[in-house]
Amino acid sequence: MKLKNNERIDDLEFDNLKIIQNIEGFRFGIDSVLLANFAKKIKRNSIVVDIGSGTGIISIILSKKANIKKIYGVEIQKEFADMSKRSIELNKLEDTIEIINDDIKNINTYIKNNTIDAIVTNPPYKKVKTGVVNENEKLLIARHEVKCNIKDIAEISTKLLKDKGEIYLVHKPERLVDIITSFRKNKLEVKEIRFIQSTIESKPNLVLVKAVKNGGEFLIVDKPLIIYKEKNVYSDEILEIYNKK
Amino acid sequence: MKLKNNERIDDLEFDNLKIIQNIEGFRFGIDSVLLANFAKKIKRNSIVVDIGSGTGIISIILSKKANIKKIYGVEIQKEFADMSKRSIELNKLEDTIEIINDDIKNINTYIKNNTIDAIVTNPPYKKVKTGVVNENEKLLIARHEVKCNIKDIAEISTKLLKDKGEIYLVHKPERLVDIITSFRKNKLEVKEIRFIQSTIESKPNLVLVKAVKNGGEFLIVDKPLIIYKEKNVYSDEILEIYNKK
Repeated sequence: MKLKNNERIDDLEFDNLKIIQNIEGFRFGIDSVLLANFAKKIKRNSIVVDIGSGTGIISIILSKKANIKKIYGVEIQKEFADMSKRSIELNKLEDTIEIINDDIKNINTYIKNNTIDAIVTNPPYKKVKTGVVNENEKLLIARHEVKCNIKDIAEISTKLLKDKGEIYLVHKPERLVDIITSFRKNKLEVKEIRFIQSTIESKPNLVLVKAVKNGGEFLIVDKPLIIYKEKNVYSDEILEIYNKK
Repeated sequence: MKLKNNERIDDLEFDNLKIIQNIEGFRFGIDSVLLANFAKKIKRNSIVVDIGSGTGIISIILSKKANIKKIYGVEIQKEFADMSKRSIELNKLEDTIEIINDDIKNINTYIKNNTIDAIVTNPPYKKVKTGVVNENEKLLIARHEVKCNIKDIAEISTKLLKDKGEIYLVHKPERLVDIITSFRKNKLEVKEIRFIQSTIESKPNLVLVKAVKNGGEFLIVDKPLIIYKEKNVYSDEILEIYNKK
C-alpha cells in the first residue's frame, strides 16, 4: 500500500482494522466509533449509505459490527475519497464498501430513491458563520455546513430510504432542535436519542440520534453514554465498544 | 382552615409551606417540585401563568424560590381550584397567587395577550387513548390530554407571552419530539433541556424544558438531574432543592 506525503496508517485497535489518515488533516474521533456502534442494530443484509464518509471510518467499523450487504460511502472531497478507498483495500472490504466521490446532492446519479435500508452520517457540526472558521478548506468542509446542512441531510435521506428505513447520526446537542424539526418535516421521526458525556458530572457534548422514515410518534431517550469513569480511565461500556473487555 | 371530606394538609417540608391534598385524588409529585426549582431563574418581578395549576404546588413553591410579582394559576377542575385557593390562604400567599377556575382556552377573558413574562406548566403526560385510561374523571383530566394537549399549550403560550418571554415545563421524554416541533411552529424556541433520572444507571423518566418566544436557535442540554445517589438515599442536588443541605 503506497502512502502519500503526510499520510500514515493508524491501527483502529478494533478487529485488526487499519485506516489511512492525513496527519495534517481531519482525523476520525470517538464520535465516529460511537456512531458505528450505535448503528450496529440495523437489520441483517442492509444496504447502507454513509453521507460524508470522510476517511471511511464509520463504514469500515460498521461493516464489521453488523451484517451488511453493501455500504455506499459518499464523499465530496477527492483527497478523502482516495484515502478511504485505499483504507478499504487495506482491510479487504472492497466487496462491501464502495466510495462515491461526488456531492451527496448528485446521489441519484448512482442510487435510486426508496432503495436504501439505512443511512449513517457524521455531518459537519457547525453552522456556516459560527464558531472559529477554519482556514484550511478541507477542514472547513468537514466541520462546517458549507456543502451539506441538516436540512439537506433530511431531504436527501427521506428520498433515499425505503418506508421504515432508518437514519443514524451523531451531532452536537445544541443542534438537536434543528434535527428534530427538519427531520419531522421530512417524515423522518426521531425514535431514539442517546447523549454522550465525558463524565457523569459533565454536560453531554455529543448526541446519537436514530430516526425512522414514516415512524410512529414515540421517543426513547437512553441513559447517557459515559466516556470516562474516572480521570483517564474509560468506562466499561467504552471498553466493550472497543472490544477491550 | 376547614378541610373537606378526604382532604388533608401535607407539610411540603420546604420553607414551612403546607398544601391541601385529596387523599383519593391526584397528589403532587417530585416533578412539580423540580419544575418550580427549574423555573426559579425567571427574572425579578415577573408576571407568571401556571397552566393547569392543580393543587397549586408549583405556584406556591415558585413564589418562595423566585421574586414574583404575580402568578395566575389556571385550573379547569373546580375541586382542585377550590383546594388550591385554600392552600394559598393557608400559606398567606393571596397577594401573589390568584387562581382562575376556568378552561385555559378562555384565558383571554382574564389576561391580555403579550403581557406575560413566564409560563410554568406540568401538563397531562399521556395522549388520549394511550396508557391505562383512568376511570376517575378528575385523574383522567389531570393525567391525559383530554382538555389540553401540547399543541394547545404552545398556541396559548405564544399568545400570552411577551417577546422573549419564557415557558418552563416538565414532561415525559417520549413526548420531546412533539414538544420541540409544536413549540417551534409557534415561535417558542426550546433553549434548554434537562433530563431527570432516578439513578445514574437508569433512563431518564422526566424532562425539564425551557423555551423562549422568538428565541435564537441554540440548545443547551444540561447534565442529567439524578434523584438517588444510592438506594433510598437522595442525591446532594435533590437535598439542596428541598433545602435539606
